[in-house]
Amino acid sequence: MKKHLLLILSAFLLILNTQAQEALFRAQNIISPEVNEDKTVTFRLFAPNATAVQVTGDFLPTVKMETPRGPMDGPGKADLTKGENGVWEYKSQPLGPELYNYSFIVDGFNTTDPSNPFLIRDVASATNIFIVGGGHADLFMVNDIPHGSVTRRWYDSPGLGMDRRITVYTPPGYETSKDSYPVLYLLHGAGGDEEAWINLGRTSQILDNLIAQGKAKPMIVVMPNGNVIQDGAPGEGSKNMYKPQFMIPKTMDGTYEGAFEDIIKFVESNYRVKADKSNRAIAGLSMGGFHTLHISRYYPNTFDYMGLFSAAIMPREDATGKVYSNFDETLKKQMDNGYKLYWIAIGKTDFLFAANKEYRDKLDAMKMPYEYVESEGGHIWRNWRVYLTQFTPRLFQ
Amino acid sequence: MKKHLLLILSAFLLILNTQAQEALFRAQNIISPEVNEDKTVTFRLFAPNATAVQVTGDFLPTVKMETPRGPMDGPGKADLTKGENGVWEYKSQPLGPELYNYSFIVDGFNTTDPSNPFLIRDVASATNIFIVGGGHADLFMVNDIPHGSVTRRWYDSPGLGMDRRITVYTPPGYETSKDSYPVLYLLHGAGGDEEAWINLGRTSQILDNLIAQGKAKPMIVVMPNGNVIQDGAPGEGSKNMYKPQFMIPKTMDGTYEGAFEDIIKFVESNYRVKADKSNRAIAGLSMGGFHTLHISRYYPNTFDYMGLFSAAIMPREDATGKVYSNFDETLKKQMDNGYKLYWIAIGKTDFLFAANKEYRDKLDAMKMPYEYVESEGGHIWRNWRVYLTQFTPRLFQ
Repeated sequence: MKKHLLLILSAFLLILNTQAQEALFRAQNIISPEVNEDKTVTFRLFAPNATAVQVTGDFLPTVKMETPRGPMDGPGKADLTKGENGVWEYKSQPLGPELYNYSFIVDGFNTTDPSNPFLIRDVASATNIFIVGGGHADLFMVNDIPHGSVTRRWYDSPGLGMDRRITVYTPPGYETSKDSYPVLYLLHGAGGDEEAWINLGRTSQILDNLIAQGKAKPMIVVMPNGNVIQDGAPGEGSKNMYKPQFMIPKTMDGTYEGAFEDIIKFVESNYRVKADKSNRAIAGLSMGGFHTLHISRYYPNTFDYMGLFSAAIMPREDATGKVYSNFDETLKKQMDNGYKLYWIAIGKTDFLFAANKEYRDKLDAMKMPYEYVESEGGHIWRNWRVYLTQFTPRLFQ
Repeated sequence: MKKHLLLILSAFLLILNTQAQEALFRAQNIISPEVNEDKTVTFRLFAPNATAVQVTGDFLPTVKMETPRGPMDGPGKADLTKGENGVWEYKSQPLGPELYNYSFIVDGFNTTDPSNPFLIRDVASATNIFIVGGGHADLFMVNDIPHGSVTRRWYDSPGLGMDRRITVYTPPGYETSKDSYPVLYLLHGAGGDEEAWINLGRTSQILDNLIAQGKAKPMIVVMPNGNVIQDGAPGEGSKNMYKPQFMIPKTMDGTYEGAFEDIIKFVESNYRVKADKSNRAIAGLSMGGFHTLHISRYYPNTFDYMGLFSAAIMPREDATGKVYSNFDETLKKQMDNGYKLYWIAIGKTDFLFAANKEYRDKLDAMKMPYEYVESEGGHIWRNWRVYLTQFTPRLFQ
């Protein structure tokens, strides 16, 4: 049996073309990145002809850079050293628990790590990732615990006149249970789609872990696509593969919020859910926080839990249109109807910090209750993953 | 409203670090690859400091190369030409309908296309892809038709002593129908996992399209993980992210085949399926063809449809062990029990061609009926996708 396996593998190698052989060689021989016991991380790149190789990523301290707009934080860079056989190497300082991203710069050209097949797309770029475990980052890992299911399916949206793709997490045991479950509607930011929270946000890993630890209630998490001109994410909808854009028309003009009832209706008629206010939560990041603000206000007696993660706070008093009109009046109505949690989180260096402060002042003035979490850092996924780990344990308790 | 949107977007740009700004610039401005009206494809790369840029991929004709093992087919390469603003460009010949892959070679270094976020992992490498539509490649596209659902979930395998991840395609209308459905068990090759057929194989797109065209019956497609030492694909199982290997221990020693009943049991107790032989099909590529051969023989009255796509034909008469013993006897039993289709497909230049010929001779000698399809090309996904489009319309008719 062993002999046959070796024969077949030699044959595989024989028929692979040279390029593939080289890739296979690299794949078999170069480990990169390697998270070491002491939490340092070793990066390696096979680039025998390169004259300079650097690594850059959010695991390195930022550096101050001069720009035409004045001094700004720039990405840290570190030099790899060329070793034997054309393999370049760099070992980091010990790193704290986190999901990090990085790329290589080979002779000035930015590139992915060919030895690391784990990449996540963010808007139009795919970036390599790695996780240093421990602490909160263990919530991002797949552990040997019961797992929920993740389904990509399509729902009919009469309000938008199309079938639309949606991602749904159901908790461990959902399929075989007879119970009904509460629902969190979890919304992405500008440039995102129904893949954002499940891929960049590690939603299924976070929920599996928090549920296994007894820290979050078993819940269904619904991740819709907030770009009303798309039926599905780039590559997954009927426009197929195209260059994803950060600016997508009509994402913040009220169309999505106005048609959100289609999503609730779909979920409540297709899943075993507790279809009442006390079992509905809605949260989102950036533009998704903006959507959360408006959806929860526009359907003012629908959700008991709101999460605004680094929310865009728009539009202001000058806005018009069905969804955005009567802002103050409907917000007051939402308050008067009552709810269990209005949770606002933002990083100290987020460019939306001032707008959020202004919004909190407004809530204070009208005595609308909320909880506020201020974190380090800016407008980044690292924060939004952590906010999700903080917000979900507060739901449906 | 427009003004606010512009303000917020300017703010976004301001806070992005220089690296991200550069990426955003590239993302916004460089379209690559661009499939043109005349089916030529334009590749572009922003690399102002590079001295030579080439593109290589399976859309280019192969070239003869001298190797230590003699002349072999090598990957074609084409030179990009440097234009204004550091953007390199190459326009291909008109291409036939297909899903292609490619990479760039920048000053001798192989790299992904930073303007194309669509990549698929194959074993340990992530490669850029694009589709030229028309003909059979339209089956690989997402079209505006009813869509099935794709679920990643976990099942209990007592035979392997662990919970294991599995990918399940349910056809359009499954969730709201009261019907029961037939099931195709679709198995990956060496180095693959429960992500292979859904990502590299375009299974959901192919099934959605064939079902919409009335060419395939609505069916459930179950894509398990055939590597018995894994609970899930690399990055998705409890070993989390690590270097995927082509050679995985215990994948061809009978353990998987012996525990396959766990998968059937899971499917038939968790989905509305027609649980009888005439509504069960099994197929696989390469190692998955090997598994198909043995599973359908080891459970000899279970499947009415078998598909061996470029199947590894092993072991031979000298094999022992529970699953592999009594090869001839159990094969004859499978024949005597009867079935509707035993479908064998292979490419003319596949390194397993001779082994398949030998196997067909064996079937001929024992008068075991089968259908045989011989295609161009070798041991490649391009063939396996096409085999799936040919095999599934034959099922459950």
